[in-house]
Amino acid sequence: MSDNVIRMAMVGGGPGSFIGPVHRMAAELDGRIRLVAGAFSRDEGRSKAAARGYGIDPGRAYGDYRQMMAAEAVRPDGAQFVAIVTPNHLHFPVAKAALESGLHVLSDKPATATLEEAESLARVVADTGRLYGLTYTYTGYPLVREARALVRRGDLGDVRKVVVEYSQGWLSDAVEKTDNAQAAWRADPAQSGLGGCIGDIGVHAFNVAEFVSGLGVTRLNADLNSVVPGRRLDDDCNILLRLGQGVPGVLVASQVAAGDRNGLRLRVYGEKGGLDWCHEQPDVLTLNWLDRPTQVLHAASPYLSPAGRGPARLPTGHPEGFIEAFANIYRDFAQAIGLGQGLSGTAVPTIHDGLRGMAFVARAVAANGAGWVDL
Amino acid sequence: MSDNVIRMAMVGGGPGSFIGPVHRMAAELDGRIRLVAGAFSRDEGRSKAAARGYGIDPGRAYGDYRQMMAAEAVRPDGAQFVAIVTPNHLHFPVAKAALESGLHVLSDKPATATLEEAESLARVVADTGRLYGLTYTYTGYPLVREARALVRRGDLGDVRKVVVEYSQGWLSDAVEKTDNAQAAWRADPAQSGLGGCIGDIGVHAFNVAEFVSGLGVTRLNADLNSVVPGRRLDDDCNILLRLGQGVPGVLVASQVAAGDRNGLRLRVYGEKGGLDWCHEQPDVLTLNWLDRPTQVLHAASPYLSPAGRGPARLPTGHPEGFIEAFANIYRDFAQAIGLGQGLSGTAVPTIHDGLRGMAFVARAVAANGAGWVDL
Amino acid sequence: MSDNVIRMAMVGGGPGSFIGPVHRMAAELDGRIRLVAGAFSRDEGRSKAAARGYGIDPGRAYGDYRQMMAAEAVRPDGAQFVAIVTPNHLHFPVAKAALESGLHVLSDKPATATLEEAESLARVVADTGRLYGLTYTYTGYPLVREARALVRRGDLGDVRKVVVEYSQGWLSDAVEKTDNAQAAWRADPAQSGLGGCIGDIGVHAFNVAEFVSGLGVTRLNADLNSVVPGRRLDDDCNILLRLGQGVPGVLVASQVAAGDRNGLRLRVYGEKGGLDWCHEQPDVLTLNWLDRPTQVLHAASPYLSPAGRGPARLPTGHPEGFIEAFANIYRDFAQAIGLGQGLSGTAVPTIHDGLRGMAFVARAVAANGAGWVDL
Amino acid sequence: MSDNVIRMAMVGGGPGSFIGPVHRMAAELDGRIRLVAGAFSRDEGRSKAAARGYGIDPGRAYGDYRQMMAAEAVRPDGAQFVAIVTPNHLHFPVAKAALESGLHVLSDKPATATLEEAESLARVVADTGRLYGLTYTYTGYPLVREARALVRRGDLGDVRKVVVEYSQGWLSDAVEKTDNAQAAWRADPAQSGLGGCIGDIGVHAFNVAEFVSGLGVTRLNADLNSVVPGRRLDDDCNILLRLGQGVPGVLVASQVAAGDRNGLRLRVYGEKGGLDWCHEQPDVLTLNWLDRPTQVLHAASPYLSPAGRGPARLPTGHPEGFIEAFANIYRDFAQAIGLGQGLSGTAVPTIHDGLRGMAFVARAVAANGAGWVDL
Repeated sequence: MSDNVIRMAMVGGGPGSFIGPVHRMAAELDGRIRLVAGAFSRDEGRSKAAARGYGIDPGRAYGDYRQMMAAEAVRPDGAQFVAIVTPNHLHFPVAKAALESGLHVLSDKPATATLEEAESLARVVADTGRLYGLTYTYTGYPLVREARALVRRGDLGDVRKVVVEYSQGWLSDAVEKTDNAQAAWRADPAQSGLGGCIGDIGVHAFNVAEFVSGLGVTRLNADLNSVVPGRRLDDDCNILLRLGQGVPGVLVASQVAAGDRNGLRLRVYGEKGGLDWCHEQPDVLTLNWLDRPTQVLHAASPYLSPAGRGPARLPTGHPEGFIEAFANIYRDFAQAIGLGQGLSGTAVPTIHDGLRGMAFVARAVAANGAGWVDL
Repeated sequence: MSDNVIRMAMVGGGPGSFIGPVHRMAAELDGRIRLVAGAFSRDEGRSKAAARGYGIDPGRAYGDYRQMMAAEAVRPDGAQFVAIVTPNHLHFPVAKAALESGLHVLSDKPATATLEEAESLARVVADTGRLYGLTYTYTGYPLVREARALVRRGDLGDVRKVVVEYSQGWLSDAVEKTDNAQAAWRADPAQSGLGGCIGDIGVHAFNVAEFVSGLGVTRLNADLNSVVPGRRLDDDCNILLRLGQGVPGVLVASQVAAGDRNGLRLRVYGEKGGLDWCHEQPDVLTLNWLDRPTQVLHAASPYLSPAGRGPARLPTGHPEGFIEAFANIYRDFAQAIGLGQGLSGTAVPTIHDGLRGMAFVARAVAANGAGWVDL
Repeated sequence: MSDNVIRMAMVGGGPGSFIGPVHRMAAELDGRIRLVAGAFSRDEGRSKAAARGYGIDPGRAYGDYRQMMAAEAVRPDGAQFVAIVTPNHLHFPVAKAALESGLHVLSDKPATATLEEAESLARVVADTGRLYGLTYTYTGYPLVREARALVRRGDLGDVRKVVVEYSQGWLSDAVEKTDNAQAAWRADPAQSGLGGCIGDIGVHAFNVAEFVSGLGVTRLNADLNSVVPGRRLDDDCNILLRLGQGVPGVLVASQVAAGDRNGLRLRVYGEKGGLDWCHEQPDVLTLNWLDRPTQVLHAASPYLSPAGRGPARLPTGHPEGFIEAFANIYRDFAQAIGLGQGLSGTAVPTIHDGLRGMAFVARAVAANGAGWVDL
Repeated sequence: MSDNVIRMAMVGGGPGSFIGPVHRMAAELDGRIRLVAGAFSRDEGRSKAAARGYGIDPGRAYGDYRQMMAAEAVRPDGAQFVAIVTPNHLHFPVAKAALESGLHVLSDKPATATLEEAESLARVVADTGRLYGLTYTYTGYPLVREARALVRRGDLGDVRKVVVEYSQGWLSDAVEKTDNAQAAWRADPAQSGLGGCIGDIGVHAFNVAEFVSGLGVTRLNADLNSVVPGRRLDDDCNILLRLGQGVPGVLVASQVAAGDRNGLRLRVYGEKGGLDWCHEQPDVLTLNWLDRPTQVLHAASPYLSPAGRGPARLPTGHPEGFIEAFANIYRDFAQAIGLGQGLSGTAVPTIHDGLRGMAFVARAVAANGAGWVDL
C-alpha cells in the first residue's frame, strides 16, 4: 500500500448489510482510501466473517467499536477515520466515541436518531476539531453539483419555486413483518428514530433541495401518513414548504408508491428558467428556458463548470452511478484529511446539514397535520 | 352537407382567439359536426371576419349571441348546439341563454366564473333537459380514458396516492401588462373569476385526478401564491389533498415555472402498482408494478380496453394530439345528440364536473393558507 | 361555405380505407378546404355510403373517377383539385386524368407504381401546368421543416453522415393472407408496384433524408429481404448510401421489426453537430453539439425559424401529430391554389420528389444484392 | 489483505492513461481482487509514479513487463493474473509473455493488432492452459446479459433482424494531430492495427450483437470511410450483415458523429417481438411485443433471470454504470481463478471472441467497398 493512502475503519456493515459494501466500494474506488479495520458486527465472529468478505485482514475485525477505536489509535498504520454505517440509533454514540478518540468521522445519514442528539453531536464536533462528514449521497452526483453551481452563478435568476420528490415502492407491503431486514429496522422507531419515510428518504429530498437551491427551508406544512395498515412510522409524506424569503416549495416522498424504484427528482425554477434532475438518469441535467431551446447537459462534458466536471472519472457517455456519487464524497473527504484542511471548501455535507435534516424531521413529525409552522 | 351531420354554432372565438379555432378544428375533425353559425365577437364586423376565417358563410355571423340564438332557432338548418369559447365570466350567461332557447351546450371550462353561477347553471341544465358538456380537454385523451378504465377494473388494487401536476411557464413575466391578450383576461379577476392559475389549469389537474382515480377530493390544504409582483390572482398553487376515504394526494400547478410548456402529469398509485401519464407524450401510458416489469401502453394498440382503443383514428405509432383529444369530446357529444341520449354513458364531462371544479377553486381560494378544510 | 374555401374531390378512400379519412381530416383541418365530391369506390353504392361517412352530399359521390371529373368540371362550385388516395397502381391513371381535365392534384405517395409511369406523369404535369403535390407526410412535420432550415442555414456545418430508419412490425406475420386489407394490397405486386417495404415506407425515409439533408442520393448498395416465408415483395430493406459528393448514409427499414410501431427516425451529422428527429415524439428536435450542451427544440416555440414555427396551430406544449403534419401539406397546397402560384416556394413535395422516390425504389429492387450502383 | 483475495498485475496504464484506472477500479470494486504490481510505463520512474497514483507499493512497479513477470513469479504473494491495458499493438506480445510465464491474462480489446497474431495467441492459450479473458465491456452490463438470456430462452422466437450502432463524435476534428493522446495512438496504424473506428468501437458493436443474438456473422458488405481529411484509418463504418442462416443485420458505427457521446445501441428482432438496449441508459431493457404492451425491464429487479439479476450490487433504481459493468467481467474472471475453473461456464469473453473480432475487422477492411463477402 502506498503511503499516500488514507486508512479507514468501518462500524456496522456486517453480513447482510446493504450499505456497508456500498461504503467500502465508494471509499476504495479511487485508490486513495483503504478499509483496514472494522467493527462490522457486535458478534466478533460475524465481524471477522465480514472482514474476509471485504477482503481485509480478519485480525483487524472487532466485535466492539470502542475496542476497535482504542486498538487502531495506537497502531502506526491505524485507521485515520471511521465510516459509520449502522442503523440510525447508533449513529450518535459511535460518532461521539470516534471523534473523542481522535478519529475523523464520515457517517451515513441521518446524523442521529433525534434532534437533541444532533445538537450534542454538533458540540462534540466543535470541541474535538475532527472532521465530520455526512453521506447525503445525492450531493455527490456531478450534475447535482453542477445544478448548485449554476443556481449560485445566477443562471436561473432568482429562485421562485422548488419541487422535490422521492418516490419508492418497496414498502408497499408490510415487508417489515416478514423477512426483510432493511425494512425491519427502518419500521422500528427504536432503531430508526422519529421518522419513517421522512427520515429515510424525505430528508435526502430536503437536503438536495437546500443544497441546490441555496435556500433554507423556513416554514413547512406537513402531511405524513402511514398508508400500510399497522405500520408505526410514516410511509408517505407530502410537505408544503417556504424557502428563504417566501419561495414556495413542495416535497413529495413515499415508500408506498408501488412500482417506483428510487425516484428522486429535483426541479428548481427561477425567473429565467428551470432545472430538472432525476436520479433515474443522473448523467443528464435539463435546463428549460423561458425564451430559448431546452438544454441538456451531459455528465463529464468539457463545457461543465469545475464543480460538475471535476468529479468525472470517465469520458462523457460512459455512465457513472450511485457508487461513483458516493465515492465523490469519500474522495473529497479523504482529500481534506490528506491536506489537513476542513470541509468548508468542499461539497461534503457537514454536521450543519445533519442538524438541518434532524430539525426538519422533528418539526414535520411534531407538526404533522397542523398547517404551517416555522422551521 | 350530408343530413347526418350535427350543426354547431359558436359564441366567442373572434379574431385573435386561440381556443376558438381549436374548438372548430376539434368539432369538425370527424366530419360529424359542422360549424354553421356564430357570435364570434360583440363587434359584428369582426364576427363576420371570423366567419370567413372559419370558412363559413358570413351571413350567419352575429354580433350578439342572443340574436344568433333566436335566428338559428327558427331555421330548419339551424344550429343544434352552441360551443362556448368566451372568457370565463361569460360562460354562465351564454350557457343559460342557449339552454333556455333549446340548444345543447358544449362549454369550455371552467363552467362559470363563480360557484354560485355554477349552482344556478346546474338548475338550468336540469330544468331544460338539454345536454350540457364541458371540454375538460385532457379527459379526451385516449390513454387518460384507458387509465380510468384500468383503475376502475381494479388493476392497481385500491388507490393509495394521487400526484397531479400542471406546470407552465408562460406567465413568468408580467405579460398581462404588455400585449398578450391571452394573459390579460386571465389575470383580470373580472373576466377570469376568483382563481388565476388554479382556475386556469389547476382545475384541469383536479378534474383529471378525479376522473382517473375515480375518487372525489374530500379535503384540501391550499397554498396559492402570486409570484410575479403586482399580479392580482394566484400564478402558482400547491395543494395537499385527501381523496375518498383518506387517500393522500398532491396537486402542484404553476404558470411561473419558467421554461415549462404545458406539463400536465398524473400519477395514481394503488396497492399493486402505479400509473403515470404525461401530456408531453400523451400516446404512452406507463404502468409500474410492484413485482413485474414496467409496461408501456401505446395509443391505438389492439390490447387496449374499448375506452382507450375506441377513440383512435390512426394506427399505433401515428401521433394524435391535443386537437384529437378535444375532438373525442366533441364526437361523443355529437353522438349523444344524434342518438337523442344523455351524456351519462359517455366520458363527456358534465355540469357535475363543472360544479366540482368551481367548488374546488372557490374553496382553495377562500381557505388559502388556512390548513386543512373540507371540500 | 365562405367563398375563400378551396374545393376538393377525392378518388379512393371508400369504406374501410385508412388513408382516405386521414386525407379528409387533414384537408379540412384549417377550414380552408372542403371536400365536396368523390369517387370513393368503383361501386357507386359504396361510394355514396362513403360520402355520408365523410359528411358530404351523396349526390356528389361517383363510381367512376372520370365521370366525376367531367361532372365537377362544369359546376361553378365544382372541385378545384383532386386528392388521390387509391392503392399505388391507380395513382398514375387518376393523376393523369385529373391533370388533363384541368384539376390540380395532391396525390398520396408513391407518385406511381413504376418509374416509367412517373416519367410519363412528369411530362403531363409539365404539359398541363396544373399543380401536382405529393403527400410525403413526414415533410409536413414542423420540426422536420425546422431541421431542413437549420441544415440549409449551415448550423451543422457541412453534412458528413445521414442515418435514417423506418421500422414497423405489423407485417411480422403473413397478415396479407388473412383479413387485413391494408396488408393485402401492399403485398400484391399488381397493386403495390415493384417494392414492398421499400416502396411503402423506405421511400418515406429516403424522401425525408433528402429533404432535410439537402443532398441527393447518388449511389446505393441495397439489401432487400422477404423475411416472412411466402411473401412476394420485400418486407425488410437495409441500404448503404452515398449522398451528394460522397457523404456516407444508411437507410434501415423494416415491416417485420416485431413490436415496432411507426419508427421513422432521421439523424443528420455535420462538422459541428448532429440533429436527431424521431416520429415517436415529433414535437422535439434534438441537436447534439461537439462542444456545447445538447439542445432540444420544442415545436411551436418562438425561437424556431419561420419554417418550423409557421405551421404551428397551438402553443408550445400542446401536441400536434400526424393529422396536423398532413394538414400542413394540404394548407400549403391550398394556399398555392388560392394565390394562383406554383409550389416552388413551398415545402410541398412535387413530381420531382416523386421521380426521385420511384427511381430509388426501382434501382434498389433491380440492384438488390449487387453491391454499389449509381442512382 | 485477506487470503481469499486474487492478486493482479497490470501492464500499461501509466500516467495519463484513461483505461488503466478504469481497469483498477473495476478489478478492485468488489474487494475480491487487489492490484499489487505493474509495468505501467516503459519509463521506470513513470511506472513508479503510476503505482503511487494507484495506491500501491512503488517497489512493485517496473519499467519492463518481462522483468515484472519474472519477479512476480517467484514471490509467494506474487500476482496471479495480468491485466493488459496497453495500446493494441502490444496486446499480443504482452499476453503471450504472461501466459508463457504461467500467469492468467485479462486483456483489453481487441485481442491483438492483426488476425494472424490472434491466431497465434489462440494457440498459446491452448498450449499454456492459462485463463485468457477479454474485456468487451458491454457484455458486462447486467441487462445485456439479460438480453442474451431471453433470446436464448426463445422469448422473441427465432431472430429475424439485428441492428447495432455505436456512435461517437470525439474524432470529428483531427484531434490526433493536436494534443489528444487517446486519439493519437488510435489514429496511428502502427499502434492501433488495421482498423480505426471499426477496430476501436465497431468491434464492440459486432461482439455485443453476436453475444446477445446468439448468432455468428457469416457474411458482410462493408463501407468504411475516412471522413476527416488526412486521417489514415477509417473513422466511420457502415456494414450490412448476415448472421447465422441468413438473418439480415446492420452495423453502423462512427467516431465523427459530431455531438454523439458513446451511443452503443442494440436491437434484436424476433418473430414475436424485439429488444432494445442503449448504453445511454444501461439500466433499462425495452421489449416491444407484437401483440401486447411494451415491457421495460429495470436492472436489479427481482423478476430478472439469474444472468441479469446476479451481477447487481445495488437495489433497483440505484444506477450502476460503466465501471460496474467492467467489474462484472473482473468478478467472473477472478471467481474462475479462485475456483480453478475455466471460463466456459461464465459470460467472460474469451480468445474465441477475440478471434471473431479480429476476423471481422480484417475482413471488413480488406473487402471494403467490394460488396458481399463471407466471414
